Amino acid sequence: MAGNSFGQLFRITTFGESHGEAIGVIIDGCPSQLTVDLDYIQSELDKRRPGQSKITTQRKESDTVKILSGVFEGKTTGTPIAMLIPNEDQRSKDYTHNVDVFRPSHADYTYQTKYGIRDHRGGGRSSARETAARVAAGALAKLLLKSQGIEIVAHVSSVGKINAPNVDISDVQEFINQREENIVRCADPATAEEMIEFIDGVRKAGDTVGGKISCYVKNCPVGLGEPVFDKLHAELGKAMLSINAVHGFEFGSGFAGSEMLGSEHNDIFVKNHTGDISTITNYSGGIQGGISNGMPIEFKVAFKPVATIMKAQATIDSEGNAAEISGKGRHDPCVVPRAVVIVEAMAALVLADHWLRNKNSILG
Amino acid sequence: MAGNSFGQLFRITTFGESHGEAIGVIIDGCPSQLTVDLDYIQSELDKRRPGQSKITTQRKESDTVKILSGVFEGKTTGTPIAMLIPNEDQRSKDYTHNVDVFRPSHADYTYQTKYGIRDHRGGGRSSARETAARVAAGALAKLLLKSQGIEIVAHVSSVGKINAPNVDISDVQEFINQREENIVRCADPATAEEMIEFIDGVRKAGDTVGGKISCYVKNCPVGLGEPVFDKLHAELGKAMLSINAVHGFEFGSGFAGSEMLGSEHNDIFVKNHTGDISTITNYSGGIQGGISNGMPIEFKVAFKPVATIMKAQATIDSEGNAAEISGKGRHDPCVVPRAVVIVEAMAALVLADHWLRNKNSILG
Amino acid sequence: MAGNSFGQLFRITTFGESHGEAIGVIIDGCPSQLTVDLDYIQSELDKRRPGQSKITTQRKESDTVKILSGVFEGKTTGTPIAMLIPNEDQRSKDYTHNVDVFRPSHADYTYQTKYGIRDHRGGGRSSARETAARVAAGALAKLLLKSQGIEIVAHVSSVGKINAPNVDISDVQEFINQREENIVRCADPATAEEMIEFIDGVRKAGDTVGGKISCYVKNCPVGLGEPVFDKLHAELGKAMLSINAVHGFEFGSGFAGSEMLGSEHNDIFVKNHTGDISTITNYSGGIQGGISNGMPIEFKVAFKPVATIMKAQATIDSEGNAAEISGKGRHDPCVVPRAVVIVEAMAALVLADHWLRNKNSILG
Amino acid sequence: MAGNSFGQLFRITTFGESHGEAIGVIIDGCPSQLTVDLDYIQSELDKRRPGQSKITTQRKESDTVKILSGVFEGKTTGTPIAMLIPNEDQRSKDYTHNVDVFRPSHADYTYQTKYGIRDHRGGGRSSARETAARVAAGALAKLLLKSQGIEIVAHVSSVGKINAPNVDISDVQEFINQREENIVRCADPATAEEMIEFIDGVRKAGDTVGGKISCYVKNCPVGLGEPVFDKLHAELGKAMLSINAVHGFEFGSGFAGSEMLGSEHNDIFVKNHTGDISTITNYSGGIQGGISNGMPIEFKVAFKPVATIMKAQATIDSEGNAAEISGKGRHDPCVVPRAVVIVEAMAALVLADHWLRNKNSILG
Repeated sequence: MAGNSFGQLFRITTFGESHGEAIGVIIDGCPSQLTVDLDYIQSELDKRRPGQSKITTQRKESDTVKILSGVFEGKTTGTPIAMLIPNEDQRSKDYTHNVDVFRPSHADYTYQTKYGIRDHRGGGRSSARETAARVAAGALAKLLLKSQGIEIVAHVSSVGKINAPNVDISDVQEFINQREENIVRCADPATAEEMIEFIDGVRKAGDTVGGKISCYVKNCPVGLGEPVFDKLHAELGKAMLSINAVHGFEFGSGFAGSEMLGSEHNDIFVKNHTGDISTITNYSGGIQGGISNGMPIEFKVAFKPVATIMKAQATIDSEGNAAEISGKGRHDPCVVPRAVVIVEAMAALVLADHWLRNKNSILG
Repeated sequence: MAGNSFGQLFRITTFGESHGEAIGVIIDGCPSQLTVDLDYIQSELDKRRPGQSKITTQRKESDTVKILSGVFEGKTTGTPIAMLIPNEDQRSKDYTHNVDVFRPSHADYTYQTKYGIRDHRGGGRSSARETAARVAAGALAKLLLKSQGIEIVAHVSSVGKINAPNVDISDVQEFINQREENIVRCADPATAEEMIEFIDGVRKAGDTVGGKISCYVKNCPVGLGEPVFDKLHAELGKAMLSINAVHGFEFGSGFAGSEMLGSEHNDIFVKNHTGDISTITNYSGGIQGGISNGMPIEFKVAFKPVATIMKAQATIDSEGNAAEISGKGRHDPCVVPRAVVIVEAMAALVLADHWLRNKNSILG
Repeated sequence: MAGNSFGQLFRITTFGESHGEAIGVIIDGCPSQLTVDLDYIQSELDKRRPGQSKITTQRKESDTVKILSGVFEGKTTGTPIAMLIPNEDQRSKDYTHNVDVFRPSHADYTYQTKYGIRDHRGGGRSSARETAARVAAGALAKLLLKSQGIEIVAHVSSVGKINAPNVDISDVQEFINQREENIVRCADPATAEEMIEFIDGVRKAGDTVGGKISCYVKNCPVGLGEPVFDKLHAELGKAMLSINAVHGFEFGSGFAGSEMLGSEHNDIFVKNHTGDISTITNYSGGIQGGISNGMPIEFKVAFKPVATIMKAQATIDSEGNAAEISGKGRHDPCVVPRAVVIVEAMAALVLADHWLRNKNSILG
Repeated sequence: MAGNSFGQLFRITTFGESHGEAIGVIIDGCPSQLTVDLDYIQSELDKRRPGQSKITTQRKESDTVKILSGVFEGKTTGTPIAMLIPNEDQRSKDYTHNVDVFRPSHADYTYQTKYGIRDHRGGGRSSARETAARVAAGALAKLLLKSQGIEIVAHVSSVGKINAPNVDISDVQEFINQREENIVRCADPATAEEMIEFIDGVRKAGDTVGGKISCYVKNCPVGLGEPVFDKLHAELGKAMLSINAVHGFEFGSGFAGSEMLGSEHNDIFVKNHTGDISTITNYSGGIQGGISNGMPIEFKVAFKPVATIMKAQATIDSEGNAAEISGKGRHDPCVVPRAVVIVEAMAALVLADHWLRNKNSILG
């Protein structure tokens, strides 16, 4: 109820503050007999980890995950899986500046007012550090989905006003390889270069910038998603909007679709020679009536610029007096390169949950 | 679990098919002693009801709501409130055409595949008729919020490529009056006229068009929203995306915010002479760290064009054979005028739920 | 959250007051393609209905159930199933006596204090009339379970200090036939006669008496129940204790088991010539570690005497002044004969829910 | 959904196996600003800890709890509280005997069948070791309740056929002192001695015995409990039945109440000179209509004898072949002395949850 759990059947609960002892997650509801590839889970965390390149924060965290329960002889047992990620490089003294001052566009003021107390160090629970726990759990969800042939991939499609062209996702591994060849995680090499240069300039100016991530789900079976409130795209939307700094979500035709005519927008069904049903266009983004239709699921997530900038800003202190603050700590000039794997993780959690939920749609 | 409930503490469960006996809703968790203004609830339903004007469907439904339980001598008693809306004008024969044929961009195919059976009449459960139950429940949520001074208003801000300018929401009643003076429910009279003319042309061409609705929450106290997964905007996003035909959601700076720099985007805190804390700009859309900050909450919802058009379209039948279909039944050329009150209702359900949830943030 | 829903995957939400317009239930999560035998559902309600015999209340209610949604051409469609039971014989004037006076051992005082308002007529929401909605939903759950070969039967095993001997449940239909041959619903004819005579005497004295119901689940597959909090017997216990007037629950060896030695109590596993695994004794009551083990599930439910008696009793009014009250309205001298089908219904709801939940125990 | 969470607003999720790395719990929903007395939490764990006396298991675990998150400068912050208890004395080799053999009246067979895999060491997840996590969380719940004046106490009221007389609970601290003076945790010294002697004899015989625990909640405000399914006693019942080895639950008059007449059983309301409303008798056990009525809440819990005995028993192996097994590992001859604090912890979790849930019963 207090909002730290996500999912119904594949259900995670995360805990931990940025500068506390550890962060972690419990996964309850993962079926037994899934092979747990710990190296894969760690490799996913490595993609989110700070200190990867010049365009990410220099905080040093190995983000080494440890499984405490629920796995026996390399397989899930059906019992809750607890994963722990100790905090290592907590320079809490970087955060004395916000003990009594509210950082603009951060959660200092709202947490303080809601709870009357807050762990100010590094933003405490409101820190994006919490998403490491999601990535760990999401990696397990991906393993479950992979065992069913379902693949999820994302990349940075925009930074500021720089937009990547549409990218081919027919070969998922190729797509990922392309993306991982550059530090901004855009699968289009030319755009990637432009983005990196732009972010680097922003960083040098002590500023930050927003961006967008496009995500795709391939080989999703028909039938996932529960009408009427738990439509698949509604759940994906909530999942994405729950990620720090996300301000927008659209799937399929999205906002542009609201400008179209029905005669342009309708996706015409066809059956190919192998008997597969598909649609000629995919303005529905792979979801109709809230239920997956077998086409690739496609959605886009908009991230605002990181609130911590290295420039002086006016604000107020906890008494309401005028004050000035400038960013301390070690921060990202642009959050999207590290957020790619978070988007994928949250998508995987939604899909794994709905894959389990769909098992009972028909009596049998 | 099966997705027909929404909310945690102020929790609704809806039921009913487009051409069944009745649709309805149970509200569980409404506190006792709320005065129930049945006329107000009915007036909200009247705004969603079909047959209001030339630009809405001609199906005739009075949508008369009846309260079966939970209200005693005009007040809520703390027990579940059941509301029933009988279906009246069910021309089911209008729907023989989709028994064995899948309408493009409808839910016929996905429901049939997911469940192996479907009530095809009028789209059955996938029909937007279900939203009448949400409007009834949302009207009760609005009454609860009003008793706390919280107001929710929305209007049509775009139809196709026609966009309304920003509208003043300082006087909520005035805003509503303006909006209700025209059949498209845009609070800017000049734009409204343009929109109506455009929709009428689309209708005559047997086509449909999408649009956008902007929604505002005023006088929301600081502190609503639960980190980390149930952020207030994540819950609003899910609520909106669960409405039929919605393809996008953004709050505050939204998608445009992803193109901005942090130095432009940060909302600077100030304290005015009466001691109120506010921010100079509101790119955060009234929500920081997932928690309301006391500024107006602002978000936008994108609707795709209605899938049913009066033109012949190619499709397939249940055997996968090529077929042709053209719209029958009585449909809206543009869904947004009737959806304004649905957007408000879903926002009210989220806010009422989080207002209750926030009662336990601090021990006391 | 407000407590009017039960179950996770096979989830019901009930509504309605004793003397309101109607009571009813929504079932969300029933898989599609279950054949709905409405006559069977009605026949179950008939077993709970008032006015059946001289030892039950004389209130006349036909308790006719109507299905409003979720069933198409005789089968479930996977969408929510709403069932409505109108109230007919509401002699609300029988209940003017408890407007300002708290009936002893009723819920008048606690409801009034909790909510500050209550529908006093017939006890409002606290009336056992609410259980009719459970019986309707439970009948559907029984149909689902029957389709899997799982059977649930109960009977009155005690009235006051009169206890029935152990009864053979090997032939379920025979057991039910025996039970339905007498108005007290005890499957042992000799004990039944004794019980009826005793209850009739109690009734004539204006008094009431308690009793016990024994319930059995046959052909339950191994594996139902979720460790650690949702153990099958914990869920059954909650289900039973939620029935009006229930004061105790035990399964398997129950309270007597706490007096035994481990060496007496352990159920020894054996495998028979057909390869079936069973235990020689069944002190575990068919459940080990919270999970069904394939043996018959056996539990017992204790009901206190009905609080409404036809004798004058001291009490206080809403101001706290001393007052006197004597039972009005039409009441049961002993609740257990009508409660047999309620116990079965609640057991069926638990089993159906766990049957669905168990579908995801193993990846596949 | 998978059953490892308990509570709605004060919600815990436990994890961990008997012989894994650690067990633990996340508490989500504890309000902020509760002072966390870690010594108190540890002292509660010490009461459950193995190796306390000659009548408990000789396994050595310090059961030292560590708080990883959610507490800042000694107070709760409203964010999830993670508590970790490392496993120390895991003699897993004690458990090679049950790799392929199903111990009678244990969960080996049901886990193996449900999941197709199990961590056999020490019973894995089915071990009562899991309850240490409940005790840690329950201690926090007790601190919350204490801050409101609500007290929970339990003691061993029966061992085998030895029953303690009713004990005075008017002075809670005195009651606890009495109880803690003997190793069986019975607040009646004479009975305690008898019980200890009996258990010691059972232990020497390599056998085990069951018992009962009586629990009392004092100063519970009127109004806790949610009709109709989440009645306070139904939730307490589920909580107790979820504890390992529990086979029965009764509250107030319990099973004996089913033998009484209504005229004997009704609790007559009176108002004393200070204006407090109470009842002369308390057959209702402090709960009417599922809602606390301000009288002491009283219930009793029956535990079966521990299944592991030191005598040889017949059983079957995983192939279904006849086998023999005799207890290894270190086990309790009678579980109730260590279970007293578990019963209290589960009661505290239910009460804390319902205390929070009741905050929204009346609009205001």
